[in-house]
Amino acid sequence: MPDTPALDAPRREPADPRFEARVRASFARQRFMSMMGATMTRVEAGEVDIDLPFDVELTQQHGFVHGGAVASVLDAACGYAASTLMAADAGVLTVEFKINFLAPAAGERFRFTGRVRRAGRTVTFVDGEAIAVADGRARTVATMQATMMTVQGRDDVRH
Amino acid sequence: MPDTPALDAPRREPADPRFEARVRASFARQRFMSMMGATMTRVEAGEVDIDLPFDVELTQQHGFVHGGAVASVLDAACGYAASTLMAADAGVLTVEFKINFLAPAAGERFRFTGRVRRAGRTVTFVDGEAIAVADGRARTVATMQATMMTVQGRDDVRH
Amino acid sequence: MPDTPALDAPRREPADPRFEARVRASFARQRFMSMMGATMTRVEAGEVDIDLPFDVELTQQHGFVHGGAVASVLDAACGYAASTLMAADAGVLTVEFKINFLAPAAGERFRFTGRVRRAGRTVTFVDGEAIAVADGRARTVATMQATMMTVQGRDDVRH
Amino acid sequence: MPDTPALDAPRREPADPRFEARVRASFARQRFMSMMGATMTRVEAGEVDIDLPFDVELTQQHGFVHGGAVASVLDAACGYAASTLMAADAGVLTVEFKINFLAPAAGERFRFTGRVRRAGRTVTFVDGEAIAVADGRARTVATMQATMMTVQGRDDVRH
Repeated sequence: MPDTPALDAPRREPADPRFEARVRASFARQRFMSMMGATMTRVEAGEVDIDLPFDVELTQQHGFVHGGAVASVLDAACGYAASTLMAADAGVLTVEFKINFLAPAAGERFRFTGRVRRAGRTVTFVDGEAIAVADGRARTVATMQATMMTVQGRDDVRH
Repeated sequence: MPDTPALDAPRREPADPRFEARVRASFARQRFMSMMGATMTRVEAGEVDIDLPFDVELTQQHGFVHGGAVASVLDAACGYAASTLMAADAGVLTVEFKINFLAPAAGERFRFTGRVRRAGRTVTFVDGEAIAVADGRARTVATMQATMMTVQGRDDVRH
Repeated sequence: MPDTPALDAPRREPADPRFEARVRASFARQRFMSMMGATMTRVEAGEVDIDLPFDVELTQQHGFVHGGAVASVLDAACGYAASTLMAADAGVLTVEFKINFLAPAAGERFRFTGRVRRAGRTVTFVDGEAIAVADGRARTVATMQATMMTVQGRDDVRH
Repeated sequence: MPDTPALDAPRREPADPRFEARVRASFARQRFMSMMGATMTRVEAGEVDIDLPFDVELTQQHGFVHGGAVASVLDAACGYAASTLMAADAGVLTVEFKINFLAPAAGERFRFTGRVRRAGRTVTFVDGEAIAVADGRARTVATMQATMMTVQGRDDVRH
């Protein structure tokens, strides 16, 4: 197909102009993220970054950051990336995710990015990437594909 | 196929007769599991249980246990279930996992079980299940399919 | 947790008493399944079996049945298992699936089973298993975890 | 992390200088791909394209190309993308894959691309993307994350 046309860009229109404040306030209520030392650094329409410094409390048996800790922060980054495009009164739930571990999570600090791949009315697909910084070099240590669901009218899952 | 024969049972022969002590010692070195309050309760050939009491430090924005925390303990249960069948000098690495969130992780305590589905020379497939206990009732809140890899001769990933 | 209560059984109540005829009629419209030689054998509330005889047209480069063929029939089995529990006027869409290849798909015939794990209002989780029969022995060759979505009021995806 | 360094590029060095002929010959032996009408169009180190015209024989109950057909060709594209980087005497096996269905596979023709994300000694991670072309517009209809394994010295899975 030498004449394949350029891909249509996915839409990234936020339904809620105040999405950034809403997303940051919700992240601040995730006690587990505070416990781990994670900080939400960037919030844009369809994209979120969360940073995490190395902490020995987060390690597995070999001294690397635990794959579960990597998955946890990536899940949060993907969920909030989806949330940026949702209505002000909607909640977000993780339906499922898959994570690939490309390399041990060795580094001084880590960046976790969630990027919306396709936002539907009910289901949003989000790609996640975890990057480790060590000795001035950055390396992808994990990738995620997550499915998020928009939830309306359920008080227990709002925000 | 009304005459479909019964399924061949997968093998569960541990290569290392002292697998239980080895697995428990490795789990004890996972600082992240200690931080979360997780306890390894059962270690058998091909199967491991880890228990976790509810702790508000583990919650997400709605007060349920964070999906990342659920994934973290399930990953550990699946990895150590695979490890029970490995040689004494082998290490285990998570290649990838997928987790489905069937229900919010609400409960007083949680049990995470990893069960080897098929143990190969290099790759082991493990199924995980997370159960929440609330008001005397047990409910599956998440299921996992994990791929584990046996690693030989790499000092950085042994035990 | 020695006192962990028994798991609550998931509900399997079909909303449409005529689900079997509806599901069989829809399967009959899947031209790709006919092309492959697949037959829907069992349709119960929350569970579906599809059988497939070996055919050299379905093979990959080593002469085994192609992993994609295995995935295709498992996807159909999972989708229709979900459909058995849906309303008469609902359609079913595959949101995503993950498949693990436990062994090469070698055999004279194959059985693909989809079993609903949890049926929600919008999202249904289904487990799939592919079994090969060779020389009178049955062996699991693949397992699937699929997420299905109930679709209402969209003419293009009904039945 | 405003000072996050640029990501290290993954290596794409083919171990076998004649990888293209080897990969094309193996693809030609996949009877299932011929049956579907798929053609391997591009073979580069770490990347493969397979094209597929619409055919009513490949459809599901709504007239779109079956999700299983999409998964089958993506699996082949991912497997052969991994194979381009392997030794001449190695075989490739799909360990597992996950596929997300972003949109119905509606179109006149389809392109399936596999791109190696990370090639390890034993395990290779590959990303796949399926694009539909309809009315001069291209749209991503599915994405895949696949884990491939290098197999040495097993006659049954070579090439």
